[in-house]
Formats: sequence, C-alpha cells, structure tokens
Amino acid sequence: MQNFEQFLLDNLPQSQSIHPHYESALQNMLQAGGKRFRPALLLSVVKAYNPLMLDSARHGALAIELLHTYSLIHDDLPAMDDSPLRRGNPTLHVVYDEVTAILVGDALNTYAFEVLSKAPLSDEVKIKLIRELAQNGGLNGMVLGQAIDCYFENRPLQLEDIKTLHTNKTAKLIAASLKMGAIIAGHEDVAEKLYDFGIQLGLLFQIQDDILDVTQSSEEAGKLTNNDEDKNSFVTILGLDEALREANVLADALTEQMCSFDESLQRELSPILTKYINRHKGN
Amino acid sequence: MQNFEQFLLDNLPQSQSIHPHYESALQNMLQAGGKRFRPALLLSVVKAYNPLMLDSARHGALAIELLHTYSLIHDDLPAMDDSPLRRGNPTLHVVYDEVTAILVGDALNTYAFEVLSKAPLSDEVKIKLIRELAQNGGLNGMVLGQAIDCYFENRPLQLEDIKTLHTNKTAKLIAASLKMGAIIAGHEDVAEKLYDFGIQLGLLFQIQDDILDVTQSSEEAGKLTNNDEDKNSFVTILGLDEALREANVLADALTEQMCSFDESLQRELSPILTKYINRHKGN
Repeated sequence: MQNFEQFLLDNLPQSQSIHPHYESALQNMLQAGGKRFRPALLLSVVKAYNPLMLDSARHGALAIELLHTYSLIHDDLPAMDDSPLRRGNPTLHVVYDEVTAILVGDALNTYAFEVLSKAPLSDEVKIKLIRELAQNGGLNGMVLGQAIDCYFENRPLQLEDIKTLHTNKTAKLIAASLKMGAIIAGHEDVAEKLYDFGIQLGLLFQIQDDILDVTQSSEEAGKLTNNDEDKNSFVTILGLDEALREANVLADALTEQMCSFDESLQRELSPILTKYINRHKGN
Repeated sequence: MQNFEQFLLDNLPQSQSIHPHYESALQNMLQAGGKRFRPALLLSVVKAYNPLMLDSARHGALAIELLHTYSLIHDDLPAMDDSPLRRGNPTLHVVYDEVTAILVGDALNTYAFEVLSKAPLSDEVKIKLIRELAQNGGLNGMVLGQAIDCYFENRPLQLEDIKTLHTNKTAKLIAASLKMGAIIAGHEDVAEKLYDFGIQLGLLFQIQDDILDVTQSSEEAGKLTNNDEDKNSFVTILGLDEALREANVLADALTEQMCSFDESLQRELSPILTKYINRHKGN
C-alpha cells in the first residue's frame, strides 16, 4: 500500500485561487492517513487476477477513498456526529469552519467521478466503475445509511434494521471496492461473489468498529470513542459479549467463504482480512 | 420544456426504506419548479444540431439540473446563506432539518453521475459528459465559486475577482450545459465556442440576479431578496446604475456573438436568451 499512499499524495486535489485556505482544506483529510482499507481491497483483487492493471487500478482505488473521505467529513459535521477528532487530527470544521467542511466534502464527492472519468482505462470499464461507485455510494447506498443512522438516533432499531443501516452506510462501499477490482481486472465472473462477500465483510467491519468504540481510548482510535450511546450500534443492541460473539461467527464464516476463492485471490486478500478481522481482538 | 419537466418527474430519485421522509426530501426541491435554464440550454443545442438525439439528451439535462439543485440546497444551509425560501417554497432544512438537507444535497450530487452513467448514449459520449460536469461543477468550478463567495463575505473584492467568483460559481455550469449539448449532438466542433459564449452568458445571468435581488420583492423572486448586502455582488461593487449598464453591454455583445452561430442554433437559442437576457428589465 506504500505505492497507493504515494499515488494519493501525487494526485491530491489542486486548486489555486484567491481563497487562502481552500486548497489546503481540500488536501487536509486525505493527507491525514487512514487505514486505506477500501483501496487495499480493490487493489488486492486486481493484483490477484491481473497485476498488469495495477497502475491503472490505483485511479479506481483513489476514487473510492475520495468518496469515503467526503463521507467522513460530512458525518463529522456539527449537524451530524459533531466530532472533534478524525484520523488522530482535529476534524475539518474544527480546523477551518463548517462552510469549508461542507464544501470540501462536496468537492471530493464530485472529484471521485472526475478521477474515474480521466483514468487510463477503457470507456466501457470507466462507465461500469462510475455506475458501481454512484450506486453504492449514493442515495440508495452510503447516503441512505447515514440518513437512517441520523434519523434513528435516540430511536432504538431492531437488529434487522441495524443490519440494513450498516449494509448501506458501510458495507456497500466495501463491497463495491472488491467488485470494482474485479471489473478493472477483467474478471467480472467473480464480481457478484466478491460483492456478496464484501457486504458480509462490511458488516463485520462495522461490528468491530462498534466494539472498538467502547473498548478503545480516543488516542488509540484517533477519533472520539464512547460516542455512540445514542446511536443504533451493534453493541448498544446486542451488548458487548453478544456483539463479540457475532463478530467471531461472522469472521469464521468469512474465513470459510475465502476457501472457495481462487488461490491467487486468497493469497492477496488474506493478509488484509487477517489485519482487519482481528481488529477487535486488539491486534 | 414541458417534455423535460415530465421527464424529470418520471425520473425523480427513489428510495424506499424505513426512513419516513428521506424519499420525499430527495424529491422535494426537484418538484418545486425552477427555471430549468441549464436543461433548456443543453436541449436547445441538441435540437439545433441533432434533434434525433433529444430523448437521450434529456438524461444529460437531468444530470445538470441535479447538480444545480444540490448546490442550491447546500448554498441555502444555515452555515452558508441561511435562506428560508427557494423556488417559492421553504428550503429543505426548514421543511425537514439540516442533516436531511446536507444528505439530500450529497445524494443528488452523486445521483447526477449515476444518471449520466446509465444514459442511453455511447460510453465514449457518457465519459465526456461526466468529465465536463465534474470539471465545471466540482472543485475548480461551482464549488470553488461558492467557497470564494462565502469566504469573502464582509471582505470586499475587486471587480476582476468578483468575475472570477461568478465565473466559477455560476457561469461554468451554464457553459458546460451548452458544451454538453454539443457533445451529445455529435458537434464537438462548436463545443469550445459555445463554452466561451456560456461563460459570458453566465456572468450576465449573475449580474441580472444581483440586480433583481435589489429590485424584486421576495414574492416575485420566490426566494429571499435584498439578502446580498454582505456579499460581493455586482450591484454592491458597481452600484445599480453601473450594473444595469454592464448587463446591457454584455447582453448586446451576446446578441452580436449569436449572429455568428449556425442558423438552426440561433433559432433554438434566441427565445431562451430573450427570456433571460431581459429578466432585469422586468420581462
């Protein structure tokens, strides 16, 4: 992922104008690190099936990271989670102001599609990627999830509805990362299987996030923790023990599902999943 | 434009979920009318050069209207213009709340690109349209304009900088509407000429908006007027008389430029421009 990190830094959004901090605000959250989990997933599929496409694939990985980053900036806004910390740094509306945070989020959302439209890939592939990113990151994907999350704050949901919430808010973009990798690699035969796997993986990722929220300090997490009391989290509904059990069951199921994948894909995905699947165990 | 209005209503964003007002919020501002100036421009170019493409072109027109609408929703937010009225109705954050207005804006931004990615056009044309919309509506276009506008509130700008502001905030998306029409019509030979014309047209449009802001009542405008006192408007810098003179000079120049256009294009554009060029005269 060192290569991707460098690629991201080489392709930061640029804008020279009379506005004194617009460009640095655009770049701020992208430079602040982050797990780059979604790019890693996309690139692992490309590496497994068509390593020659890796250079081109970085554009797709960047687009996903841009969409993910805009969503964090908007989720942290005072009107939503009102979070002071993200990726170990003050959030954008704290460093600058609310206007800047809203506009930078808007700009990164659009920029994700600009990056895809200019990627060194065929028009056919680019259109498929844009459709996938928009469908999963948009009004019936990530944005819907956030809308449900905010609306039902202080209104307890049933477990099934919490799964719907996080399928949209978190899992669909993770699933799209894997599917977009398959599209770029020219292996659409595995696209749907990977997408389904990604949805499960996204749910596991979220359960772990909810667990870490109550077990980690803010310093460890790089963001405000113990912040989900009024939220519909897996821990608030299931309790910590049951959430941990659910995470382990899901992790085992994913590990088993992995065995049906092509060997090259298993080899690439394994280290990424091991790293994230074990997050809640403190690794 | 009746056809476009119907097309828009037939293609409103849809989302069934447990969220009680998310779908109606997504549709609210799109159903509230509006001039549909940008769609009219795009469709007029297609009608002039390749009327057989009109049905497909509506998807491009819809995408532009979606991007424009999201920008209005975010511009009206409490953190920015804090406007209570738009298109004659209460703004989205007034009808619902700030969270809903932010998320609906985000969703419509992404949806614009989803609509283009699914349009019945060739992949090559779709990629060109997506690139054009993203470049002009994004971080070095519309969003930059809004960022400059907000940052320099209460900080007076020079005339040249106000032109930069409005070239980005307003004119680029208007110019892109004309250019996207040329791309869909398969007449890219006129694309750049139309784009330049659109930039001038956009500036005229903005000067007129600034004039109407001080001469129209809120009822006539369907939005809060006399609201630009702290803003860098052409009227606050030039004064009303000089702004009117500037508008007339620009209108005359555009009318003259029109004479160099193909006859079919003149025929289609004329009624639209007459309608808008004369707005500040009260027509």
